[in-house]
Amino acid sequence: MEKETLTIVKIGGNVIDDSEKLHYFLEDFSKLKGAKILVHGGGKIATEMGISLGIEPKMVDGRRITDIQTLRIVTMAYAGLINKNVVAQLQAKNCNAIGLSGADGNTIRAVKRPVKTIDYGFVGDLSETSIAVDTINGLLNIGLVPVFCAITHDGDTQLLNTNADTIASAIAVAMSAAYTTTLVYCFEKKGVLRDVEDDNSVVSEIRMGQFEQLKEEGVVSGGMIPKLHNAFEAIRSGVSAVYIGQAEELLREGQQSGTRLIK
Amino acid sequence: MEKETLTIVKIGGNVIDDSEKLHYFLEDFSKLKGAKILVHGGGKIATEMGISLGIEPKMVDGRRITDIQTLRIVTMAYAGLINKNVVAQLQAKNCNAIGLSGADGNTIRAVKRPVKTIDYGFVGDLSETSIAVDTINGLLNIGLVPVFCAITHDGDTQLLNTNADTIASAIAVAMSAAYTTTLVYCFEKKGVLRDVEDDNSVVSEIRMGQFEQLKEEGVVSGGMIPKLHNAFEAIRSGVSAVYIGQAEELLREGQQSGTRLIK
Repeated sequence: MEKETLTIVKIGGNVIDDSEKLHYFLEDFSKLKGAKILVHGGGKIATEMGISLGIEPKMVDGRRITDIQTLRIVTMAYAGLINKNVVAQLQAKNCNAIGLSGADGNTIRAVKRPVKTIDYGFVGDLSETSIAVDTINGLLNIGLVPVFCAITHDGDTQLLNTNADTIASAIAVAMSAAYTTTLVYCFEKKGVLRDVEDDNSVVSEIRMGQFEQLKEEGVVSGGMIPKLHNAFEAIRSGVSAVYIGQAEELLREGQQSGTRLIK
Repeated sequence: MEKETLTIVKIGGNVIDDSEKLHYFLEDFSKLKGAKILVHGGGKIATEMGISLGIEPKMVDGRRITDIQTLRIVTMAYAGLINKNVVAQLQAKNCNAIGLSGADGNTIRAVKRPVKTIDYGFVGDLSETSIAVDTINGLLNIGLVPVFCAITHDGDTQLLNTNADTIASAIAVAMSAAYTTTLVYCFEKKGVLRDVEDDNSVVSEIRMGQFEQLKEEGVVSGGMIPKLHNAFEAIRSGVSAVYIGQAEELLREGQQSGTRLIK
C-alpha cells in the first residue's frame, strides 16, 4: 500500500514579519492537499520586545546567546504572539491548525547544548529520538494541522530555543517511516541560483550526486552549502524531496518554482 | 454503561504567581486519576510586562479593558510564557500535557463582547456552541491532557481575552454529554465559610436547593454569590459536582476539604 503524503513547510522571519506576505502564504498553505505541518521561526518581534524591555541581545563570536531573559521573551513571542496569531489566521481559512511547542504533547524533546568553548545558554539540540512520532500522528489522524514554533523542552521542566530549520528537518525525517514526506523551506531567494545576481537563474532540480559538482563549480557557495548539506542529509534519512524557494511561489498550485532536491 | 470521569481544574493568579505553590499543585494534578483538563488564568506577569513596556492598564468603571496592546501582552504572557512553562513542568511529572488557546484546534470559539455602555475591547464571550467537544475528546483519547489558557478566538482571525472561570465551566458543561464531569475551582479561601473570619468554618457541602437559604442566612454573600450561582448553573447543565477551595488541599488524595456543590 502506498504511504500517505505529508508536507512539512518551514517559514522564517521574512514571511512572519510581513503581514501581507504571511496572509497570502497561509492562504496557499491552507489549500495544500494531504497531511501537513507548519514550522515557523521567529522574526523581528522578539528582538523588538527585548529592546522595549531593555534587554540587549547577547552575542558571543557573532552568535546569539539565549540567556534566561531572552528565553522568556522568545517563549512569549514565538509560542504566544506569533504562534497563536498564525493559528487564528489558519482557522479563519478553514484549516484546523493546532499550535505547539515541543513541550506540548512532548512532541519535541531536546538536549541543552553542552558548553564547549561557547555557552549558548538555553538552546536545544535534537537527536534521532527527539520527535514523538505517535503523538504527531495522533494529531494528524484527528484532522489537525500542527503548527510548531521553535521552542522545545528537555523533559525536565526546561524550555529551550531551537533552530526552526532543524525542527522542520527532524520532523520530516522522523515522520518518513509512516508517510511519504516532502520538506519545503521558504526563504528570501527564489531557490538555488546559477548566478546570484540573476533571480531568473534558478536551478530547478539538484540530485544528491550532483551536489559535490555544483559546489566545485561554485554554483552552490556560502550559506547555501550547509543549507543544502542538511537538506540532502534529510533525503538520505528518508525524506523524499526538499524544496527551497520563496513562500509566495513555492506552495501555489501549478507553479514551477524553487529548487527541488531529490535522491 | 457508566460514563468515564473527567475532571476540569481551574487555577488562577494565586497559584500561578507562587512558584512553590504551583509546583505542588502540578504534582497533585499530575497524579489525578482519569481524564483531566487544566484551565489557568493570568497572574501578575501580564500586568508587570505591561508596566515594563509602558502600557498602563485601562479601566472603565473599575473593569479592565482589553485594548489591542493589552491583548498582545496577555497572548504572550498567558498563551506563551505561563502556558508553556506549566506544560513543561507537567511533562517533567510524566503528565502528557498539551497547551492550548481556544484558537488551537478551534477548541473554544467566542464572540467579541458587543459594545453596550462599555466597550470592553477584545474580550470574548462564550455560548453553548463554543466548545469543540469532538476535538477535545480526540485529544483525550490519544492520552493527552489539555491545558487551556484564557485566550480564545472568534474564528475570523481575532484572538480574544476570556474569563478563565467561564472557560472551565463551559468545557465542563459541554463535555458532560460524554463524561461524568467534575469541576474544581481553586481559589484563595478554603471554601465557602460560615464565618468569613474563621478558616475552619468551611461548609463542606451545599445542595442546589440550599443555596437560596444560605444566601438569606448571609452564609453566602458578596463575590461568593455569583461564583456559586455560576457553579449551580453548571450543575443544572449536566456537571455532576463542583468543588471550591484551595489548590494545595483540593486535589490531594484522601483529603476532605473545600466546599462540594451538588444537585
